[in-house]
Order: sequence, then structure tokens, then C-alpha cells
Amino acid sequence: MKYISLMGATGSIGTQTLDVIKEHPSEFKLAAISVGKNIELTRKIIMDFKPDLVSVANESSVTNLKAEFPGIHFTYGKQGLTEVAVYHKANILVNAVSGSIGLTPTLEAIKEKKTIAIANKETLVTAGHLVMEEAARNHVPLLPVDSEHSAIFQALQGEKEKNIEKLIITASGGSFRDRTREELQNVTIEDALNHPNWSMGAKITIDSATMMNKGLEVIEAHWLFSIPYDKIDVLLHKESIIHSMVEFHDSSVIAQLGTPDMRVPIQYALTYPDRFKLPSAKRLNLSEIGKLHFSKMDFERFRCLRFSFDAGKAGGTMPTVLNAANEAAVAAFLDRKVSFLQIEDLIEKALSKHNNISNPGLIEIQEVDVETRKYVNSLL
Amino acid sequence: MKYISLMGATGSIGTQTLDVIKEHPSEFKLAAISVGKNIELTRKIIMDFKPDLVSVANESSVTNLKAEFPGIHFTYGKQGLTEVAVYHKANILVNAVSGSIGLTPTLEAIKEKKTIAIANKETLVTAGHLVMEEAARNHVPLLPVDSEHSAIFQALQGEKEKNIEKLIITASGGSFRDRTREELQNVTIEDALNHPNWSMGAKITIDSATMMNKGLEVIEAHWLFSIPYDKIDVLLHKESIIHSMVEFHDSSVIAQLGTPDMRVPIQYALTYPDRFKLPSAKRLNLSEIGKLHFSKMDFERFRCLRFSFDAGKAGGTMPTVLNAANEAAVAAFLDRKVSFLQIEDLIEKALSKHNNISNPGLIEIQEVDVETRKYVNSLL
Repeated sequence: MKYISLMGATGSIGTQTLDVIKEHPSEFKLAAISVGKNIELTRKIIMDFKPDLVSVANESSVTNLKAEFPGIHFTYGKQGLTEVAVYHKANILVNAVSGSIGLTPTLEAIKEKKTIAIANKETLVTAGHLVMEEAARNHVPLLPVDSEHSAIFQALQGEKEKNIEKLIITASGGSFRDRTREELQNVTIEDALNHPNWSMGAKITIDSATMMNKGLEVIEAHWLFSIPYDKIDVLLHKESIIHSMVEFHDSSVIAQLGTPDMRVPIQYALTYPDRFKLPSAKRLNLSEIGKLHFSKMDFERFRCLRFSFDAGKAGGTMPTVLNAANEAAVAAFLDRKVSFLQIEDLIEKALSKHNNISNPGLIEIQEVDVETRKYVNSLL
Repeated sequence: MKYISLMGATGSIGTQTLDVIKEHPSEFKLAAISVGKNIELTRKIIMDFKPDLVSVANESSVTNLKAEFPGIHFTYGKQGLTEVAVYHKANILVNAVSGSIGLTPTLEAIKEKKTIAIANKETLVTAGHLVMEEAARNHVPLLPVDSEHSAIFQALQGEKEKNIEKLIITASGGSFRDRTREELQNVTIEDALNHPNWSMGAKITIDSATMMNKGLEVIEAHWLFSIPYDKIDVLLHKESIIHSMVEFHDSSVIAQLGTPDMRVPIQYALTYPDRFKLPSAKRLNLSEIGKLHFSKMDFERFRCLRFSFDAGKAGGTMPTVLNAANEAAVAAFLDRKVSFLQIEDLIEKALSKHNNISNPGLIEIQEVDVETRKYVNSLL
């Protein structure tokens, strides 16, 4: 039996993680969850899964919940998030929060030797070197949950790192794949939230439309697989059937494919190195699909992807700035304070203004994160 | 250093195996070869690679070669083939002959604990149970060289057999993919030998055009991977870029891809479980290719594929008949004695006439093989 702590239980990855846990009641037990402000869904999760520990965003929600569920321990806020991450009964932490808020709890969980299933790419983008160092020091595996990184991880099973020629991360192109930059001038939030292949949270769907999501994935892949940036390619593949690939130095390419369904990589992280059945997943039928399309990624059209490679290669606190600026800019867009294309401009300004700090510690990263958000908000 | 015996050195797989050996002179040494009647190419191979032992098809070629290359041991015929297969200095036998003539030497090499790299699918089709039993008894690995089986083998690295849902073998469709049965009435040998993606020997190119090659591969896959026939699918994929796939029971699919180049699977068999560089191989560029196509396999259009599944499921000596009838019928087509579509008719007749023998021994298989060829030839 694996005991699972789940950060971000009411989000898109969170609820799909719960689906996977429900499919295998004799294998998985939900031990602790963190949630945001969706208390109604939280109630339902508590009734269905009976976790020992629940952390909510705000203290104000705690009193009522305590009265309702007297057998359960409630906590809240950032401290609550870390309590969930390090909960003593859990073997594995599924980090499915959005944003760099996931960093500190992840580091604490690693110190407690929890296996980490990571869907929270911002944690690796903002402080990949700290997370990977801590994981290595504690011999803790970091298992990818993102479909692309899970695909690469699956393709690497039974293979040697030294034989990798490059990673090929596929990109659907997001909601605005077929629009020119001119056509992006006046797009709305509703347009941006309409992703062609994946149903996801708001932040990641906007990140997909700006291609920042792919940029964050490139940096995440760099850290997860210890691969230099010049060995990471991004390939447009609009069907999202090939989830990513690894090319080896003999020219052989191994790919992982499937109908888009996040439960597959989530479950793989939970069952690794084994695989469990997932009968409710839609099987891939390539003859029904007929064609798979591939094309080159345009770094002028998708400026955030270029920013990401540049920030990743620069290292230091540059990826922290990239991520914090993006989080602030996307929040501003979702608040209808800036237009879609202004997201890129805000990120670009934040990056060009920043004086890079090499090999930053946690405190420096947190300071840069806060300063960057302040700076972006000052431009609104 | 790996010492290699190579059966079928002057053929298509044979010469490409030599290319791979030449790329890694400090890793591979050619110890023994068997060749057919191409003595000119044999001379060149001897000068380039200086094997200890050479077996030719006919005794008549031996005298001259002996005079020319006094340091080398020459032998001939079926006995010579087995001498090459069991040559004491070799660690690995690459079986790249065409036809069930490869069976006895392969069994003898397994008894001598040689690792077998098998490109000779007819050996597994005609007597898969005997070969696999002998390999298991002697703890000898059978490494696939066929691009499809190598793809499956690569996809299975790091995976558990129990988690396999099905194997998906891709098929280019061969030279006549886009022709109807009516249009096949009067096709010539020259038309049939013109394969769109792969440059191969005559027999396998005709087998590709009749789709018998895919049928033989299905039976080969059944034996190599211990998979029942109802878990083997065949998928039309005209570009031959995805070389085959494995679907697991969580719905995840792992595929191996590459520009068609037989040196890649040959080298993988020789370097397994490692991979060596192969700088001269053309790298896969999916954005250049643009589209991959997939469609359902039509078992009425490609009757040999249906024959193969039926013979495979029937087991016993049925696959022996399938293979021997096909070898005789293809030889007759190449001799311009029968038309292209008559190949199928001859095979169908041989199969329907045969009284199946279950769990046959080697002698029975050899008898059925001889009888079947006689029967097919009697119909010409």
C-alpha cells in the first residue's frame, strides 16, 4: 500500500490523481491533501477518501470544516502546505500545485525522504539546482507527472544516460497555434482558455497559448534528466499523440504515445517502475486518427520559448525571474489588466532588467521571486 | 571484443552487418562467415575482414579460394553453414540467411551457447517452439534484427511482460500497397522488386509485396516475445518511420522510430544492452517529413497476412507449411513460372491440403518442409 500526500487536490491534476487512487483502492491510500478555496469540492474529497490531514488556503475555512469532520486534522496556509508535504504516514508526495509556491514544501518533503511525483513545473524552473541537489543528497526519486516528461522518462527506461543524443519535446501549439502574431492582438481570455487537446487549469492553459508552458518544460527537462539545453528540441505536433521522444546516439528514437489523458502519466508516477491497468483510459487507435503532423517550432512566433531557452542557458536567478514574471503577467491577464501579447512584453522587461545571480540559495531565489512579481505589478 | 559469426555475409543484412563491424573495429571482430555463390564479393570480404573460417555454397569454389587465401579455413554446403554457426571463437551468431535453411545451424549454435542475433525469420516461423525451447534450456538470448522486432524489443526495455496489452507491428505495404487486387493480375518481377522504403534482398522484397513478410513477422513476434496472436496487431504505416510499438495495459504506447536503415537494428543487436554511436546513420527529422500516415490492414486485400495468422494460431506444422510453400512459390515467381497472385494460391493450396501435426520434432518439421516444397513444385 502506498500512502499519498497530494498538494493541489482540487485542481485538474489533483482530481485526476484522485481518480487514479480510486481505481486502485487496495494499492493507494490518500493520506493528506492541500486544497485552495474550493471548499465544496474539498468536502466531497474528504467524504470519498477520508484523508488524515487537510490543509486549506485560508484559516477562515478551518472552523466549519473541523465541526463537520471531527476525525480529521485541519491546517492552512503556507505552513499547512508543508505539513501536508512532509506528513509522516505518506511515502509519496504528489505536487500538483501551480506556481513556485510548491518549492519550499517540495524541499521539505525531500528532506523527509518522500518520493516526489512532480506536476508542479514552476518548482523546478525557479530552483531546479536546489531541488535536484537535495534529491540527490537524500536519494529521493523525482518522478515526472507532466505528460512530456513522463514520456521521456518512459522512453529512458532500460537505457543509459550516456547514449542520449537529444530530447524531443512535442508541443501541440496551444489555443492559438494557427494564429499569426497580428491575430493575437485582441484575443480574449475565453479564446485563450480553449485548448484543443487538453483540459487543464487556467494558468497552464494560458501558458500553453503563449508557449511559455513548453519553455518551462524545457527547463524542467534540463533538470529532471540532466541534459544541456542544446540537446533539447521542441517539435510542433498538433495532435498531442506522441507525448515526447528521446533520440539516442545510434539514431534510434524511442517515443511514448497515447490518447491525451493525464491519468496515464499520473498513474505511471504512482506505480513506477510497474504499470497498473487503467481500463477507463481511451486506447490509442492510430488508424482512426489517420495522420500525425509535425513541424518546426518558430521562435519568433513563440517568443516565450526563446526567453525560456535563454533564461535556462543563463542559469542563476534568470529562470526564477522568467517564472515569477510569467506568473504575475498571466495573473494580470486573467484579471483582464493586460492583453495577451503584453504577457510576453512584461516577461521580457523583467528579464532584461534583472542582474543575474549565479548559484543562488533558497533565500535569494525567494527574494528575486518576490521582487520580480512586484516589478511586473508596478508596470500594470 | 565480440567475435562474430555471420551467416549470409554477402546478402543485404550480411553486408550491412559488415558495415557495422567496420564502424567499431575495437569492439567487433568478424570470426567466420557463410556465403552463397557470390565469390567476388566473398574475396573482398575476406581481404577486408580476414575471418578465420569461410563456408561457401558449393564445393567447387573451395579449391581456388584455398590457393588464394592459404591462412583461411574453407568449408562448404549445409555442413559448412553449421561449422560457421558453432565456430568456437565466436560469441555471437548473426543469422542473416534467407529461408528455413537457417534452422539447423541456429539450433546447433544455441546448443553451443552462442548469443543469436536473428534476421532469418523463416527459422522461427518454421520451428519457433523448438528454437525457443532450446534457447531457454541453454539460457541463450535471441536478439531480433528485423526492424519491427528490434523496435518491439527496444520498446520493451525496462518493462514487464505481464503489463503488455498488445504488440503493434507496422507495415509499409510493400511495392503494391496502393494497387487493388485487379491491378495485381499482371504485375512483373521488376515491379515487385521495387520497394518504396527499404532496399532488401529479392525474397523479402517479394514477401513484402504479398504481405507475407508481415505474416512471417507476426509469427516471429509470437515466438520472440511469447505473445498470443490475438495480442498482435498489424498497422499500415507507409513511411516506415515508426518501426513498431508496444501498448501496455495502462494504455501507454512505446514506439521506436527512425529513418529506415537496417544498420540501426543490426548494431543494436550487437551492442545490446548498450548502444554505440552510428554517425553515418541519417537522423530522423520529423518536421522535414511533416506527416505520418496510418490505416487499417485489409485482410482480404492481403490474403497472406490472414494465412499467417491462421497458420500461427493452428500451430503444429502449419507454420512450417506456410513458410515452405511461400519459399517455393516465391522462387517459382522469381523464375517466371507463376504470376504474382498465384503465389497466394499456391500457399493456400498447400495449407488446405496439409494434415496438421501438433508439437512436431525437428525431423517431422524437416519432412513437412521438403514435402511441401515438392507439392508446390508439382503444381507448377
